[in-house]
Amino acid sequence: MQFDEFYMQLALNEAWKYQGLTYPNPAVGAVMVENGKLLSIAAHQKAGTSHAEVLALIAAYETLSGEKIEFDPLNSEESHDFLLKLPPKFFASCTIYVTLEPCAHHGKTPSCASLLSRLKLQRVVIATCDPIKGHDGGMNLLQNVTFGILREKAEILLEPFKIWQKRAFVLFKLAQTSNGRIGGGYLSSKASLSHVHQLRERCDILFIGGNTVREDRPTLDCRFTEGNAPNVKIYSHTSDFDSEIPLFKVQDRKVEITDDLSFLDQPSFVLVEGGEGMLQSLQKKIDWLLIYQTPKLSTNALSYNIEMNLDFLHTERMGVDMMIWSKQVGY
Amino acid sequence: MQFDEFYMQLALNEAWKYQGLTYPNPAVGAVMVENGKLLSIAAHQKAGTSHAEVLALIAAYETLSGEKIEFDPLNSEESHDFLLKLPPKFFASCTIYVTLEPCAHHGKTPSCASLLSRLKLQRVVIATCDPIKGHDGGMNLLQNVTFGILREKAEILLEPFKIWQKRAFVLFKLAQTSNGRIGGGYLSSKASLSHVHQLRERCDILFIGGNTVREDRPTLDCRFTEGNAPNVKIYSHTSDFDSEIPLFKVQDRKVEITDDLSFLDQPSFVLVEGGEGMLQSLQKKIDWLLIYQTPKLSTNALSYNIEMNLDFLHTERMGVDMMIWSKQVGY
Repeated sequence: MQFDEFYMQLALNEAWKYQGLTYPNPAVGAVMVENGKLLSIAAHQKAGTSHAEVLALIAAYETLSGEKIEFDPLNSEESHDFLLKLPPKFFASCTIYVTLEPCAHHGKTPSCASLLSRLKLQRVVIATCDPIKGHDGGMNLLQNVTFGILREKAEILLEPFKIWQKRAFVLFKLAQTSNGRIGGGYLSSKASLSHVHQLRERCDILFIGGNTVREDRPTLDCRFTEGNAPNVKIYSHTSDFDSEIPLFKVQDRKVEITDDLSFLDQPSFVLVEGGEGMLQSLQKKIDWLLIYQTPKLSTNALSYNIEMNLDFLHTERMGVDMMIWSKQVGY
Repeated sequence: MQFDEFYMQLALNEAWKYQGLTYPNPAVGAVMVENGKLLSIAAHQKAGTSHAEVLALIAAYETLSGEKIEFDPLNSEESHDFLLKLPPKFFASCTIYVTLEPCAHHGKTPSCASLLSRLKLQRVVIATCDPIKGHDGGMNLLQNVTFGILREKAEILLEPFKIWQKRAFVLFKLAQTSNGRIGGGYLSSKASLSHVHQLRERCDILFIGGNTVREDRPTLDCRFTEGNAPNVKIYSHTSDFDSEIPLFKVQDRKVEITDDLSFLDQPSFVLVEGGEGMLQSLQKKIDWLLIYQTPKLSTNALSYNIEMNLDFLHTERMGVDMMIWSKQVGY
């Protein structure tokens, strides 16, 4: 068995669970192992909270000591303080697997690279390097680095992050039956809906087709997660919308009707919801497709027509549904 | 972390890779761990070859000793002999995770339960018990058994095995695009095709719709795996088929044209290939659906109409495709 690859794959799988949700940060996973013994699996969950390495270290501390910590491990500052006060050799026989080079950037707390170098782990195994100038260089602070394990897979995980630095990362969300029918009411499980609402909460713009607005009369809020509703752009050449459509009534949100796609040139995270028309109009702009596939075959809903080549990137179970992350290729 | 669940899940995942291919045996996975250190992951691959426990033990031996064995570990007899000649305490600090109670049945080689009891492992963790009278009782031969870890998931893995003891296990295979289009030439990756051909090789009967035979003029052999072509039943009320259709020309196979479904009452493994018509005609008889989903959206191929509720059971990557095991529910 290729153990380095095995543990790195666990870190990658964990990171995928938070893909998109860490915006504007990258999705990152980390795994702690001591003499081949798995101690913890963790991932960065949300910008402003602890990085993956810190969460993996805290969870590894709990496994090794048998004690529960008494603060919130998502609190980055408390977690760093706690880890730095452990006995100097506490993690000396441990290896950490991280999907991305630990950050060298000092903010409120020490950087992860400096934390790891002070904790003096036996090995630090890194899949790929930090693509952002100023955040990189973490590797140089560390001893005993193994670099490049599952690098290609880690680069795919990192792709949205690299895109939204330069321009909009356009994620098209599609909820469908297993025979590819869309629309026809609520197709998806509660877990899927709650995931969509988390993505809506995190994105800069929710971009939706004019026809979908006219026909479905959606609210487009985040009621499943009680988060703030996203600002909405409606893709339409005309502005004749019934102002009674619920999405216009949501508090503290901007709604703009536009047929100008130049906003996609701005570094941002744009979530797209719509049907066949929106898929076709936006085809050249779509980076990734996120399909929530429900476990049924149906005659009721609509089939949709488009030619698009994809790469499947990752599959995750969402309640009874399956969530399929894929990338448009050949455009 | 729930480590027992974690390792059992690894064993289950590995077993799923050989679902259907172990016929008439059940799909079984096993994982070896020493003091929390992962040593090996294995699964039963094919009837007549080593069981999952034996393959996991052999691979664990290789990890622990750093030596490669010089015989084929799929050879059950040689593997048992080798394992029984190891120093008595070789695996004394190891735990084995097995998705199914080790067999108590003595054949050419000692049973897995007796092998494990002689190897005196620290713990034997078992997900669920052997449903076949005469094969069960393995647990009683063992010391330090932990039973019931991920039992429900293990029962799902075992379901085809339980069905094909009593009547035909009917697996409907469907190759489709991600927007649910079928037909239209070769949709699937080489890995998917080779997997289908392995299933064809293992099944008792390949059952195919008359319209598919007339329209696609298939060969239905196992050329990707160089295996023996399966016997074919064509579902049709009339026997007016062009005898030049390639499937009739394949050597050493029986072809029968029938509209009588009573053969499905016999304990057996029946693989079904067909389109919308076959799905609809056989709906009440379908146990599981196996979808090979290709990474593209298409306008060319046909959409299909049927109402069917499914449970997603397992997803596996097959080259660029995704293979989705699902179960029909509500019938």
